[in-house]
Amino acid sequence: MRRGAEHLIETAKGLGVELCLANPGTTEMPIVEAIDGLGGIRPVLGLHETVCAAAADGYGRMAEKPALVLLHPGPGFANALANLHNARRAQSPIVNLIGEHATWHMAADPPLHSDMDLLTRWVSAWTRRNGAASAMARDVAEAVTRARSGNGAIASLVLPHDCQLARAEAEPVPPLHPERAPTVAAGRVEDAARTLRGARNPALFLGAHALRGRGLAAAGRIAAATGAALVGETGIARLDAGRDRPPVLRLPYFPEEAARTLAAFDAVIVCGAKLPVSFFGYHDRPARFLDGQAGVEHLATEREDAVRALEDLALALDAKADPVLKANEPLPPATGKIGPEGIAQAVARHLPEGAVVCVTAVTGGAAFGPAGAGAAPHSQLALTGGAIGSGLGMAVGAALACPGRRAVALEADGSGAYIMQALWTQAREGLDVTNVIYANRTYRILEVELERGGNPDYGSAARRMTEIRNPALDWVTIAKGMGVPGVRVETGEEMEAAVRRSFGTPGPMLIEAVYG
Amino acid sequence: MRRGAEHLIETAKGLGVELCLANPGTTEMPIVEAIDGLGGIRPVLGLHETVCAAAADGYGRMAEKPALVLLHPGPGFANALANLHNARRAQSPIVNLIGEHATWHMAADPPLHSDMDLLTRWVSAWTRRNGAASAMARDVAEAVTRARSGNGAIASLVLPHDCQLARAEAEPVPPLHPERAPTVAAGRVEDAARTLRGARNPALFLGAHALRGRGLAAAGRIAAATGAALVGETGIARLDAGRDRPPVLRLPYFPEEAARTLAAFDAVIVCGAKLPVSFFGYHDRPARFLDGQAGVEHLATEREDAVRALEDLALALDAKADPVLKANEPLPPATGKIGPEGIAQAVARHLPEGAVVCVTAVTGGAAFGPAGAGAAPHSQLALTGGAIGSGLGMAVGAALACPGRRAVALEADGSGAYIMQALWTQAREGLDVTNVIYANRTYRILEVELERGGNPDYGSAARRMTEIRNPALDWVTIAKGMGVPGVRVETGEEMEAAVRRSFGTPGPMLIEAVYG
Repeated sequence: MRRGAEHLIETAKGLGVELCLANPGTTEMPIVEAIDGLGGIRPVLGLHETVCAAAADGYGRMAEKPALVLLHPGPGFANALANLHNARRAQSPIVNLIGEHATWHMAADPPLHSDMDLLTRWVSAWTRRNGAASAMARDVAEAVTRARSGNGAIASLVLPHDCQLARAEAEPVPPLHPERAPTVAAGRVEDAARTLRGARNPALFLGAHALRGRGLAAAGRIAAATGAALVGETGIARLDAGRDRPPVLRLPYFPEEAARTLAAFDAVIVCGAKLPVSFFGYHDRPARFLDGQAGVEHLATEREDAVRALEDLALALDAKADPVLKANEPLPPATGKIGPEGIAQAVARHLPEGAVVCVTAVTGGAAFGPAGAGAAPHSQLALTGGAIGSGLGMAVGAALACPGRRAVALEADGSGAYIMQALWTQAREGLDVTNVIYANRTYRILEVELERGGNPDYGSAARRMTEIRNPALDWVTIAKGMGVPGVRVETGEEMEAAVRRSFGTPGPMLIEAVYG
Repeated sequence: MRRGAEHLIETAKGLGVELCLANPGTTEMPIVEAIDGLGGIRPVLGLHETVCAAAADGYGRMAEKPALVLLHPGPGFANALANLHNARRAQSPIVNLIGEHATWHMAADPPLHSDMDLLTRWVSAWTRRNGAASAMARDVAEAVTRARSGNGAIASLVLPHDCQLARAEAEPVPPLHPERAPTVAAGRVEDAARTLRGARNPALFLGAHALRGRGLAAAGRIAAATGAALVGETGIARLDAGRDRPPVLRLPYFPEEAARTLAAFDAVIVCGAKLPVSFFGYHDRPARFLDGQAGVEHLATEREDAVRALEDLALALDAKADPVLKANEPLPPATGKIGPEGIAQAVARHLPEGAVVCVTAVTGGAAFGPAGAGAAPHSQLALTGGAIGSGLGMAVGAALACPGRRAVALEADGSGAYIMQALWTQAREGLDVTNVIYANRTYRILEVELERGGNPDYGSAARRMTEIRNPALDWVTIAKGMGVPGVRVETGEEMEAAVRRSFGTPGPMLIEAVYG
């Protein structure tokens, strides 16, 4: 008879799971042995759980199916929570496998023990504590099914060590099918169609799956038929962008700009997203941008089937023609002192078709939106939940999901410092990742906030909590220490050369673009 | 009138708080400004929250008073949980200050929003959600008081941004006094005294504050009077060790060795600790070591006043004389190929008096116990909760708590990789920290577990999840990238020279001892 851990891995394989992002400990060794003994699932080690979680997020957004994330209980899983928070907001399909003390040892309250159920509940749509080896197959089948349900979700399984280890016949697994995201009522489609027909200057505000594949295609047809602008969430889970795709404007981060952007439209159809709100609440700025605005229709929430809703809306509008896309002006080469615009230009100009660009530099990354519109067709993954320190790890997952396509991380030095360990996994797995570090030597967003707060004259103590000079992180050297070659650039010319070199060379590379 | 954030900082200062370990975001800017404007609290930035939490733990264990830990909500605080778990098990006094969305913005469920109360509850002895600027002074006074109560505790304050920002008169702060840890009943002291008197080969099993200062001195007198051996917990919070101090044997990590160690005594008095249990439960090994053993007295739990209990026990035994300590054989210089023993020898031989040694390398660190016994008087801090990746950060806190004394981190390459960002804080603050990396290029404990599990022939997939070669982390280069000078050693002779140099040079240094 097989061990519980073997039933689990065999069942996950049968359901199409191919990848396990792992940072295991003692309580996960039976799972490690099952992956080792049974084969068929690729194990990828992260040196910190945040790498595993960010990679699972990037993988889920691109592969649209879950990877396993194998983690130690308590502090191990806690270390993954930040990037799982991003994944939850992105609705990425993920199955967490978390070891646990043997059932009979829990009451002893050993040093590593903690209340795992609190932590899994914090971030998961579905949780289960396995109770027997015989139930391992069924439990993981339910977890994978739940992760694939709706627009994607996080499912977390807590696995006591003795249950992983015990040998048992597996209970039969009932037939399980992922639940589709709920279809929106026909009345809402009609309301949206009517509103669009009556508008002079409408927009679609899009999130979730509305910004990729079939959803984006339908949005493009609606735009062609009605003149609607396409506006994406600030923190999009995934946007398929570039030449030959309908251009999508991203909602700006700061609330006054976001409110101004949306107020310009006489109709806004929200599809695959919540009604947009400010990232933070400021007492003197708008917080719920569409409150009280006329012509707003909430066609589909972020949990509903936005793709179907857009296709139905296109049908209702008889919008059959693909949009006629304006050719973008070719971008000139980046020159002179480097900065966010120059970085965006150089990356966009040379971007290989099918690339996956993780745009997670908080202030610096915004410039890639306009530049990317004219680049080769590619996907963009952004910061969905505000947990900074994701890009270097999401790129790991994107590269694993899309072999043969290049992953690009546009990450800042401040945010990158939360997840520098991802570079090692890139090196070990030989992943085709280009890491661009926006080295402005500061948490620039915090300086902006201090200034916005009316305190431009803050002193040295505030500076010590917002800038990261003295010493500046030497990213090229740090990357080298983890096996990733790197180059420092200070001009557009150097950036162009570095990007060309990295895009043309298999394996990972780091480009530190210094402008701070 | 002052802002809520100003009331908070002013009150904390008045209660003797001197340090704020910070990784703030937008919702914490009013606190940053208050620290900046009011002065008197030293802000120390960590590039990842795990650094702040580990540093607060090390600081709390040495200073025996709380630092503030200023963090962003949700993912920010989540990133600190692993090392806060260690701190909880160490009973380190810590006050977490966690920003939060404005009270009126929470219901909008912005991207960063999450259930903060679940996370604070997971790790804190006391939590409070502030509700008004006027209550900030009172709330932080209660938090500091609670953190100083008993043997030390984690108190977490959640601080809505609008309440930090609002101006108000402060509500009066009632007189607050930390609660002392409960005194054990006289009967338990008498029982312990009787048991010790009747034993031929007794031991004291000690934890919490019993292994430092007055507690350890009382334990030494009891040992002198009764012949009792002193045994410390495997994961001690703090052990004052070295020449002129009663020698303390640490309970071995693996259960069979731990059980064997304790079974050799005909009486065991447990003081300042739970009854010892196995770190993990293995179906074929002992789990609760003292179960059914005769002569066991639980004198004081880890929450009770172990120091007073030991002093009372010494009185009851009329144990007034300090122990006569055997001079340790001087350790020979380390020579030949380096390994855990050679590292321990070299560090112990040259250790400056008053050093704080964070012994957190899981397999390699054990050798420092015997070696340290003959070193200059020093303190040892160990891994209390099993959250690996603490030593480099605890050393930050120890150095901040004990200026003029050297902090030493004995950390492995595997565990160090969880917290490499701590090196940057060491460089920025110019801290006197010697980081020794046990570079065996593996999660050695996991290989041991695979072998103990009867699977010595595990294959390449298991290897990929347990070893960290290909590429090996180049710690000297990584440290350089964060501003810390380093040296690689492969022999005892090189290790001796490196340690001497680092101990004689102000500021941080890293020594990568390669033996994998």
